[in-house]
Amino acid sequence: MPELVVFGSVAFDSIKTPFGSVEKTLGGSGTYASVAASFFSKPGIVSAVGSDFPTAEMDFLKSRGIDLKGLELKQGKTFHWSGEYGLDINAAKTIKTEFNVLADFKPQLPAEYTKADFLLLGNNNPEMQLDVLGQMSKKPLLVIADTMNIYIEKQRDKVLQVVEEADICLLNDSEARLLFKTPSLVAASKEILKLNSELSIIKKGEHGALLSTAKGCFVAPGYPLENLVDPTGCGDCFAGALMGFLAKEGRVSEDLMRKAIIYGSVVASLNAEGMGLEKLREITLDDINKRFNEFKEIVRF
Amino acid sequence: MPELVVFGSVAFDSIKTPFGSVEKTLGGSGTYASVAASFFSKPGIVSAVGSDFPTAEMDFLKSRGIDLKGLELKQGKTFHWSGEYGLDINAAKTIKTEFNVLADFKPQLPAEYTKADFLLLGNNNPEMQLDVLGQMSKKPLLVIADTMNIYIEKQRDKVLQVVEEADICLLNDSEARLLFKTPSLVAASKEILKLNSELSIIKKGEHGALLSTAKGCFVAPGYPLENLVDPTGCGDCFAGALMGFLAKEGRVSEDLMRKAIIYGSVVASLNAEGMGLEKLREITLDDINKRFNEFKEIVRF
Repeated sequence: MPELVVFGSVAFDSIKTPFGSVEKTLGGSGTYASVAASFFSKPGIVSAVGSDFPTAEMDFLKSRGIDLKGLELKQGKTFHWSGEYGLDINAAKTIKTEFNVLADFKPQLPAEYTKADFLLLGNNNPEMQLDVLGQMSKKPLLVIADTMNIYIEKQRDKVLQVVEEADICLLNDSEARLLFKTPSLVAASKEILKLNSELSIIKKGEHGALLSTAKGCFVAPGYPLENLVDPTGCGDCFAGALMGFLAKEGRVSEDLMRKAIIYGSVVASLNAEGMGLEKLREITLDDINKRFNEFKEIVRF
Repeated sequence: MPELVVFGSVAFDSIKTPFGSVEKTLGGSGTYASVAASFFSKPGIVSAVGSDFPTAEMDFLKSRGIDLKGLELKQGKTFHWSGEYGLDINAAKTIKTEFNVLADFKPQLPAEYTKADFLLLGNNNPEMQLDVLGQMSKKPLLVIADTMNIYIEKQRDKVLQVVEEADICLLNDSEARLLFKTPSLVAASKEILKLNSELSIIKKGEHGALLSTAKGCFVAPGYPLENLVDPTGCGDCFAGALMGFLAKEGRVSEDLMRKAIIYGSVVASLNAEGMGLEKLREITLDDINKRFNEFKEIVRF
């Protein structure tokens, strides 16, 4: 039984950045999050792939200890995203999105997944996120949901319902400003805390993340990266590593969440140093812990 | 004799933000920096004001322990800046700049100022900054120079000379990217370190600051502000408080610089909570130390 259930896409990505390009490489929010989580604990992934999905990649996911009972194999082609980054490398320009087998995918959790203590609802339609959440047979210790601006613009009420029903809805700074119509991230955090949340996390891209509770806040800096090669999947790595670390600990507290956010930033920053999943395929938990300790020195004063 | 010499404007500011407006209130980079420094040590200011400058404001500056021997009183009007901020409150739109008595001002340091150990060259024409630096009769312990994009665009070589001759040239993130033609702040920091600097500081506005040395770096988070009212002078407060703290310590080390950067962020964040100098007129060193200690909790993990 997986310690952490990850609902998110498994995809082929075609990516172009000023520093390189790859065609149809393994990607998708569910993949990045699961692989990032797998350094700490045993995730299970809920998604679908097509008949073109290579056995070698299936074997790679298994080799990371990722449970694949929730990964449906469907007739047709795997989801395919093509994107490009300019010199302002933080913003991706989507060239093409071919949903393929995910177009009519109805996620169905395997029975044993419904008892997991940790659930990560990857960036998706909020109705589908609520549907997956509703399939859990017991209340998880921690549910984190990711979202993005198109859902905030088109389904604001449903996104607010996700914020309310999940423990944490991961927003980045511009999404938080958009959802709560305020320029202040502190004000947005307070709105989130009012919506039935004990913790609020707002991601600030290269500038780190802001954790807020009723008592105060934690500001995690971004890791000062010299070699940013490809930011694809960094947000998913952040969420996956954060959840993977907490799933390993088996409980949630503000102090553990502070550490979890740093682990999230560490894995995201390592991921950005290679094209696609390249870097995550190479690194070990030792590399992650080394950069975690660097963070201690980076914020010391 | 002042412990810290501040070369920068003393001005009237007319400011409009979404949260308020003021007409012809005391401002200017030299004023903000000196007042911020005055919580820690004894600054002397080098600038000029016109015959319209109120005695009450002269008395206010004196009451803060600011030495005014370097403040020339000239026939004519005081420098006047009018600016406006939109909802993206980090970027000021200049409505009008009337240089008045500063138009043909040739700074001349009083003899005792030339022996100061700490020199802050406020944002100004780089040739004038180099001229003031050249007037020092002994090498100060620390020279920090501020600059801005117009000088980088029009006098790039002179700005690079300032980076080389000052100990630290304060750049913000976009200025650093512009000056060194790189998207990476870490890469820009390395270029700065090559130019005869032991320390590099890049300011990131609300996201804090990045300090780099040959050994590694320190990432100071921005203080999570709920009530940002007016950012005018925040960069000058950052530089002034940082220098004021170091001038009080009487020496420079990496560890002291980390603390100095936090003090700079603290005073800048307090300043942003009021229109113009309003907040700096009210607060005490206790308020500053309280927020400094909050920063410890904010970055703990």
